[in-house]
Amino acid sequence: MEVMAAHNNGFTNHQNGTTTNHQNGTTTNHHNGTANHQNGNGTAHEDGGKDFGCIKPGWFSEFSQMWPGEAFSLKIEKLLFQGKSDYQDVMLFESATYGKVLTLDRAIQHTENGGFPYTEMIVHLPLGSIPNPKKVLIIGGGIGFTLMEVSRYPTIEKIDIVEIDKMVVDVSRQFFPYLGAGFEDPRVTLHIGDGAAFVKDAQKGYYDAVIVDSSDPIGPAKDLFEMPFFEAVAKALRPGGVVCTQAESIWLHMHFIKQIIASCRQVFKGSVNYAWTTVPTYPSGVIGYMLCSTEGPDVDFKNPVNPIDKDTSHVKSKGPLKFYNAEIHKAAFTLPSFVQKLLE
Amino acid sequence: MEVMAAHNNGFTNHQNGTTTNHQNGTTTNHHNGTANHQNGNGTAHEDGGKDFGCIKPGWFSEFSQMWPGEAFSLKIEKLLFQGKSDYQDVMLFESATYGKVLTLDRAIQHTENGGFPYTEMIVHLPLGSIPNPKKVLIIGGGIGFTLMEVSRYPTIEKIDIVEIDKMVVDVSRQFFPYLGAGFEDPRVTLHIGDGAAFVKDAQKGYYDAVIVDSSDPIGPAKDLFEMPFFEAVAKALRPGGVVCTQAESIWLHMHFIKQIIASCRQVFKGSVNYAWTTVPTYPSGVIGYMLCSTEGPDVDFKNPVNPIDKDTSHVKSKGPLKFYNAEIHKAAFTLPSFVQKLLE
Repeated sequence: MEVMAAHNNGFTNHQNGTTTNHQNGTTTNHHNGTANHQNGNGTAHEDGGKDFGCIKPGWFSEFSQMWPGEAFSLKIEKLLFQGKSDYQDVMLFESATYGKVLTLDRAIQHTENGGFPYTEMIVHLPLGSIPNPKKVLIIGGGIGFTLMEVSRYPTIEKIDIVEIDKMVVDVSRQFFPYLGAGFEDPRVTLHIGDGAAFVKDAQKGYYDAVIVDSSDPIGPAKDLFEMPFFEAVAKALRPGGVVCTQAESIWLHMHFIKQIIASCRQVFKGSVNYAWTTVPTYPSGVIGYMLCSTEGPDVDFKNPVNPIDKDTSHVKSKGPLKFYNAEIHKAAFTLPSFVQKLLE
Repeated sequence: MEVMAAHNNGFTNHQNGTTTNHQNGTTTNHHNGTANHQNGNGTAHEDGGKDFGCIKPGWFSEFSQMWPGEAFSLKIEKLLFQGKSDYQDVMLFESATYGKVLTLDRAIQHTENGGFPYTEMIVHLPLGSIPNPKKVLIIGGGIGFTLMEVSRYPTIEKIDIVEIDKMVVDVSRQFFPYLGAGFEDPRVTLHIGDGAAFVKDAQKGYYDAVIVDSSDPIGPAKDLFEMPFFEAVAKALRPGGVVCTQAESIWLHMHFIKQIIASCRQVFKGSVNYAWTTVPTYPSGVIGYMLCSTEGPDVDFKNPVNPIDKDTSHVKSKGPLKFYNAEIHKAAFTLPSFVQKLLE
């Protein structure tokens, strides 16, 4: 869930007039106990970055209209970076138990000790499902982790990555240097810009795979979950090409997931699938993915054909996979009964 | 994760002298904004139940030494019950987004909208793995949900449930009346008492299955994760009988999981397996289970033979299953690579 959007700001803008659950006048944020904190004086995230939304001194708390009524909190050991880009607030801190944590507009994007399932799965679910991927487009993903995972595949000749926010790339390369290997890969071209515009202008049928490593469907990233974007992606993919896009939580966003599946079924004439995995530092502890293919050679996402977990050529330069394996790949498409029922 | 133990108290007692992450003098709990809250004046959970550990007025926050450095919070709509039993603090509130929530010593045990995966899986993973279960023992489970799930099986003739804390049974029957069907089942005997002692005194080879619906391995429940208890369970099971016990989170407790697997491998000579599932309102969003069988007829836990999800005889009286199905059963045993590696 990287970049592209102002998480809370965006959603708030789209929800003008609704009342947030944590928008009551009695709330007082305490920042006096922690030197690194600015003074906050009111609601937890309606103030556009004036505080960290902390509800306990020295802790980061993640409130959002995307998951009202609940919040995950992490103890901050040390604030490492805080800045405001053209697109969002960027913050990076050392947490007590999950290593370094990157937040954008106070939503957790990556944690060193808990973020890897999200990234390994968003890359290897699609690329593990097609033989010999050669050209890959990543939209978002400025942290670099997605790029590094893509660069494990020796068959790949060309990787385009389109990140809207240069600050995310710069901060990530500084604080997560071991994730930066992908940026040095000669097959990679980094484009700082709008992913939706990039894919719209892409050569027809050019890519084998498109990976949409986006933030939530609010604000600027909203376009990345809608029909015109899916149509542009389908056009940019070769016949039997695949897309994997971040698709939120079965616990929090089933209404939205139903919508996105309906859109994808209209656009992608190969196959349309939903998968999910565990991410301990994302809301509700899970994240989902849409996996679709265009008309052409059949893609059976549930039975991987390109086993990166069995190949060891990339391990020396990129390190071993921590989460993904062929069995986890297959299991990711298994849905609880309430999800099956809602997707019927 | 029900009953049997004082979550935080127990762990704190066992960790005398260690400093908790949220035990600094600058912390101030805010209870002034919410009428139902008592005044708190210090650390978040070291005061044995004097406050709710809230870090924001009107919100419940779940701090514990079992998951230091992180906390999950829920907005409280209305406090419905608060009491102190002989064993623990019992609290029940209506949350903003997960329905009613039961906490014991300020650890979330059950939420109406998010707790069902835990309970469906702790019951149907073991009972779905053996043909014609007849006699079942539940240890803990005073909420009644586990009992109701067990009572779906028409082949069962006898269910013993041993819950140490009568207040949990009484409060649950009052506030979750739709989970109480099991208590009215003529096959059921409710024993208020110590589960470890009960199983030690059980008739040798009597049960087809034992389900240990316990709280965390601290305080009174600590015994339920140790060798003498496993030995007593193995003795109480028939040859080829099965046990399923709550076994914490792959994200938070791998060290403990390794220990419990090592113990189980010594005691259970049929098979020893680890499974896990998503629970949005448990720490890190997942919970695990140990599934073991005694020497005797082979039990292949990964391939269910007793398909309760295909049987519909129980649906009218108990309602449909929300989470469990045969595919989810199989997928639950699929482990991420870092877990596989740690369990080698």
